[in-house]
Amino acid sequence: MRLRVRYNECDPMGVVHHGSYASWLEIGRTELLRAAGVSYRAMEEAGVFLVIVKLSIRYKRPARYDDEIEVLTKAVRGSRVKIDHEYEVFKVSADGSRELCVTAETTLACVDGTGHVRELPTWLQG
Amino acid sequence: MRLRVRYNECDPMGVVHHGSYASWLEIGRTELLRAAGVSYRAMEEAGVFLVIVKLSIRYKRPARYDDEIEVLTKAVRGSRVKIDHEYEVFKVSADGSRELCVTAETTLACVDGTGHVRELPTWLQG
Amino acid sequence: MRLRVRYNECDPMGVVHHGSYASWLEIGRTELLRAAGVSYRAMEEAGVFLVIVKLSIRYKRPARYDDEIEVLTKAVRGSRVKIDHEYEVFKVSADGSRELCVTAETTLACVDGTGHVRELPTWLQG
Amino acid sequence: MRLRVRYNECDPMGVVHHGSYASWLEIGRTELLRAAGVSYRAMEEAGVFLVIVKLSIRYKRPARYDDEIEVLTKAVRGSRVKIDHEYEVFKVSADGSRELCVTAETTLACVDGTGHVRELPTWLQG
Repeated sequence: MRLRVRYNECDPMGVVHHGSYASWLEIGRTELLRAAGVSYRAMEEAGVFLVIVKLSIRYKRPARYDDEIEVLTKAVRGSRVKIDHEYEVFKVSADGSRELCVTAETTLACVDGTGHVRELPTWLQG
Repeated sequence: MRLRVRYNECDPMGVVHHGSYASWLEIGRTELLRAAGVSYRAMEEAGVFLVIVKLSIRYKRPARYDDEIEVLTKAVRGSRVKIDHEYEVFKVSADGSRELCVTAETTLACVDGTGHVRELPTWLQG
Repeated sequence: MRLRVRYNECDPMGVVHHGSYASWLEIGRTELLRAAGVSYRAMEEAGVFLVIVKLSIRYKRPARYDDEIEVLTKAVRGSRVKIDHEYEVFKVSADGSRELCVTAETTLACVDGTGHVRELPTWLQG
Repeated sequence: MRLRVRYNECDPMGVVHHGSYASWLEIGRTELLRAAGVSYRAMEEAGVFLVIVKLSIRYKRPARYDDEIEVLTKAVRGSRVKIDHEYEVFKVSADGSRELCVTAETTLACVDGTGHVRELPTWLQG
């Protein structure tokens, strides 16, 4: 998944604000699902919600406004009710070389429309 | 209504990003309602939603990280289904003097939970 | 310019928060410059900054999470120190049909690194 | 440090978006410094920048629009170049009772204006 850094995602130091990465990881998860043929929006419309219960980010190197970014997302572990992802966020140079900016991990839990824990759809269980 | 500029509300120029003001105006409206004894959250829970149909902002002077900000909000016009507000956003110095950063206007329409236009509660009509 | 609505750009009503459009308009301007062979990041590195002095948005129809969005941006007027843009923001259906969500206008002024008004680069003057 | 949840900090599930907490933790750090008599803005103006190298958040319970939030921040460890903080984020009911929504930890490193690691000011060293 590729994106370009937006002006308002950067802070007065001139680099991407550390909080901006959370939304990129979320896009990474959405696109991973889409690549598997699933729309997260359709999941929600069917009453299956994935909520984040744990987020961990390590910042290695800053990215800047207008940098091209690549987010690699993989599902690494799952149970009947939870799923873990790992991420690598790179900035991509004009010559195609990549530098690692951030690594991250999340744990998601599956809940229904009232916020109660429910089983993940079978195909998402680890 | 007073607030302090957050780091992530500023951009690489070191000033408040122009998009950040929209959320401050929204807080101004919420607090104007609260001062009138009404919770906008309770309004929504009762199925009355105010949606923005027009927003206009003029930027006079930049504000910066950690500046103290004052938002003056007033309801200026209303009809059975719409309400207009005007805003002045100041930065407040340590000595209490104020400089005008932004003026703005919004028009809100009243809708129900399905997005259809409905009448404003009587006490909000102009 | 196309993008997909992010989860955190939507609000509890389930639609794109009105403030989220400001960053999309900004991307529209950046990509308009890029299409003309200019990087706004390079302009800033050369000490030429474009700051927004006026923003006006009319909201016609809501967009939702995961909608595909198209932003049409055009430069409509200019002087030695200012430039005006107009925008149309559409949501694009799977069948390619488009619905107008938002129209907007901005006025940008040109300043130097210290915030003082300066002339626009000649090629940007109207 | 207390704040009220903003409308645009919430997502289509009707709860605070998980990414919104990062800016609240940042305010917690700023106010902890201010309580110690130090302005982070003044630190930056003196060429001392604190950049985040690690962020970890555990989400226990959702918060909602207009909830009153309390952020408890404490510095727990330090070295010559790094400082660790721990956080607890509560929602506060009208009767003053508190429920724990989030716990978090960050590690900050000290850099100069060019992004190179430098020693923390002596009074910040652990």
